[in-house]
Amino acid sequence: MKDKANAIVAQSGGPTAVINSSACGVIQAALKSGKIGTIYGATNGILGVLHEELFDIGAEIPETIEALKRTPAAAIGSCRYKLKSLEKSKADYERILDVFKAHEIHYFFYIGGNDSMDTADKLNKLAAGTGYELVCIGVPKTVDNDLAYTDHCPGYGSVAKYVATCAMEAGKDTEALYTTDTCTILEAMGRNAGWIAAATGLAARCSEDAPHLIYLPEIPFTLEKFVSDVKDVYKRLGRVFIVAGEGLKNKDGTYITADTGAFSKDSFGHIQLGGVAGILKTVIEKEVGIKARFNLLGTNQRSAMHFASLTDINEAYMCGEMAVKNALAGENGKMVTLVREKAKEYHCTTGLAELSDVANGEKKVPREYINQAGNGITEVMRNYVRPLVKGEAPITIGNDGLPVFMRFERKSVEKKLPQY
Amino acid sequence: MKDKANAIVAQSGGPTAVINSSACGVIQAALKSGKIGTIYGATNGILGVLHEELFDIGAEIPETIEALKRTPAAAIGSCRYKLKSLEKSKADYERILDVFKAHEIHYFFYIGGNDSMDTADKLNKLAAGTGYELVCIGVPKTVDNDLAYTDHCPGYGSVAKYVATCAMEAGKDTEALYTTDTCTILEAMGRNAGWIAAATGLAARCSEDAPHLIYLPEIPFTLEKFVSDVKDVYKRLGRVFIVAGEGLKNKDGTYITADTGAFSKDSFGHIQLGGVAGILKTVIEKEVGIKARFNLLGTNQRSAMHFASLTDINEAYMCGEMAVKNALAGENGKMVTLVREKAKEYHCTTGLAELSDVANGEKKVPREYINQAGNGITEVMRNYVRPLVKGEAPITIGNDGLPVFMRFERKSVEKKLPQY
Repeated sequence: MKDKANAIVAQSGGPTAVINSSACGVIQAALKSGKIGTIYGATNGILGVLHEELFDIGAEIPETIEALKRTPAAAIGSCRYKLKSLEKSKADYERILDVFKAHEIHYFFYIGGNDSMDTADKLNKLAAGTGYELVCIGVPKTVDNDLAYTDHCPGYGSVAKYVATCAMEAGKDTEALYTTDTCTILEAMGRNAGWIAAATGLAARCSEDAPHLIYLPEIPFTLEKFVSDVKDVYKRLGRVFIVAGEGLKNKDGTYITADTGAFSKDSFGHIQLGGVAGILKTVIEKEVGIKARFNLLGTNQRSAMHFASLTDINEAYMCGEMAVKNALAGENGKMVTLVREKAKEYHCTTGLAELSDVANGEKKVPREYINQAGNGITEVMRNYVRPLVKGEAPITIGNDGLPVFMRFERKSVEKKLPQY
Repeated sequence: MKDKANAIVAQSGGPTAVINSSACGVIQAALKSGKIGTIYGATNGILGVLHEELFDIGAEIPETIEALKRTPAAAIGSCRYKLKSLEKSKADYERILDVFKAHEIHYFFYIGGNDSMDTADKLNKLAAGTGYELVCIGVPKTVDNDLAYTDHCPGYGSVAKYVATCAMEAGKDTEALYTTDTCTILEAMGRNAGWIAAATGLAARCSEDAPHLIYLPEIPFTLEKFVSDVKDVYKRLGRVFIVAGEGLKNKDGTYITADTGAFSKDSFGHIQLGGVAGILKTVIEKEVGIKARFNLLGTNQRSAMHFASLTDINEAYMCGEMAVKNALAGENGKMVTLVREKAKEYHCTTGLAELSDVANGEKKVPREYINQAGNGITEVMRNYVRPLVKGEAPITIGNDGLPVFMRFERKSVEKKLPQY
């Protein structure tokens, strides 16, 4: 690799509280190394590369770069643009290489999930085929925690801490007002993997504490079992607090939000629009006869910097930093992974996995992390998630009492190619 | 009043992050005074009195009482049981007096909103009529901030701080992923008054910041104006972040969630179940043609102790403390109010208002707090709310990385009356 080659850092997919910490790790490590020329940010992930919308991210003032660690979402800009196979999306891949060539980009640091690792992998292979020197290193990111080959994903510890705390707090609300609002349902993100919902089990330090029931997409959902579970808790405590993963599925694998049988309009009214929580609320009111309400934290769960996990922030930074160090040490086509060391005290280091392996993997919540009844978690899950939520984010509070976040100045780099 | 008379403290209505701070103020001031005998907690507000479900709250260990300041919701237990006029609910009022007599209760400290003040007022008048010595003092509480005769309500500063922060964070999420998730709607509590929605205006420190549009129940909602507003912001920024009060109404005063005209099933499908945010999402997708999603914080907004306002916590405590001090100083039939002193720096003291006045009042957001276009706030509103959200709650974090809340041991007091 020639000395002082340029680099691009980009972010992709759903934002998290700490994806900017990873970007900070990449940028600061690249600047510190003295071995990388200009480090560009690509506005809105791979879309920014395709449209040659780059800015000199290394030239932003150091305080702005440092403040990435305390700013949620994706400050460089993200996207959900999905590139297909090299054959089907050939024009896109070639355009990306053209942009790289035009700006002498030889390092590509892509912070994202499976799809991003797939894009980086294919790009890397295309470059190798054409003889263009390119180093692609992936940085893991997803609140869903479903990437394979890594103990956990940056972003997960923070969403776990926040949603578990929300379950604890809304649980206290239900406990206070159970004579009216007897049942509360909290819907957690995670379309195919129930890691976030499972993490809320940490909130229940005793059997009175919320959540009393947790449902994950990994366990087939049946109406009869659910109604029976709710009745049992109601009988025991006079109130019920439920956490439901957004991606609950029937026995045949159909999302219950899409089911036209047991949860059809005729049986339960037009309840599809409330999502999983809306369906469960209607089922409970109809079948158990108690009032239910639901909280849908939505994007607030993945952007909750104000109560992010310090462990998560630090690990996200480490992943970004190690991406640069590994790239400069000659690694290529890899994603940085988090490795939980076998020790009494939690200790996390980094490793590497093949981009192609990560692209094709998906890690669901293992059966032994879920209780026998399929409506709660086990000690194995608790031990897994507990260290990840520790420590509080050192946020900056303005003199108006609210957090202060950064925004890039974003000085555009002159385009050298025709419009795409 | 005879020396060492007993007291009851009770909580009522929707919980807040700081209603327990008020309870703490009452309990600690009562214990410290040396002038009150036993201080009882009534489990689940006035329901607890009716059913003679009392516990010796002053005998709980001091650490539990102190931890009330850091615990959300209503630790004594709340309810929504509404007593009507003295004629219509005569049996209830008389039963309450019987319970008071049986346990020699001569002080009643009721923490709640309008309805609670109404109950306390009527009870007070009934007692006076029968010659039973009773001192009733109200402590204000409501996240809705709609009580009259007080500058603001304990509970409001915390929900304002939290929901404004959520708008800021989810706003960053929309800014990061606007190429896919172009519009986000955050629904705020407040059925008739838009104080919470209005507070989120603090989050927008510049015109790029979320929220870009804020809709309050105080301003009649029209579809045409709304669609035009959204289009304008979309044109300017390529993304739109909206905060909507849950109680938006049409020109004729009908809740838009109940409207059968412009928002009917035929026009927009079966969208009522998503509440206001669900309706707005559907309108935007249909009329503006951009993807919209919504966050419904629900009870998490009123129980968010993990990011409560320290100013609010302290003022809630002060209200509880002053309730006891005023009662012992001979006041009766009053609610403690918060008084904003006319000074350059924010300074808040307490005053008193007649229970009957508070019971019949309602304070909406004044027109001058809302911008000309009816879709945002003015500097007057900012200046009003800014001091209330300042300071962060000193929460206790356990060694599992999550907050630690208290729960009363709740040693029941023996019943002396037949079941009600």
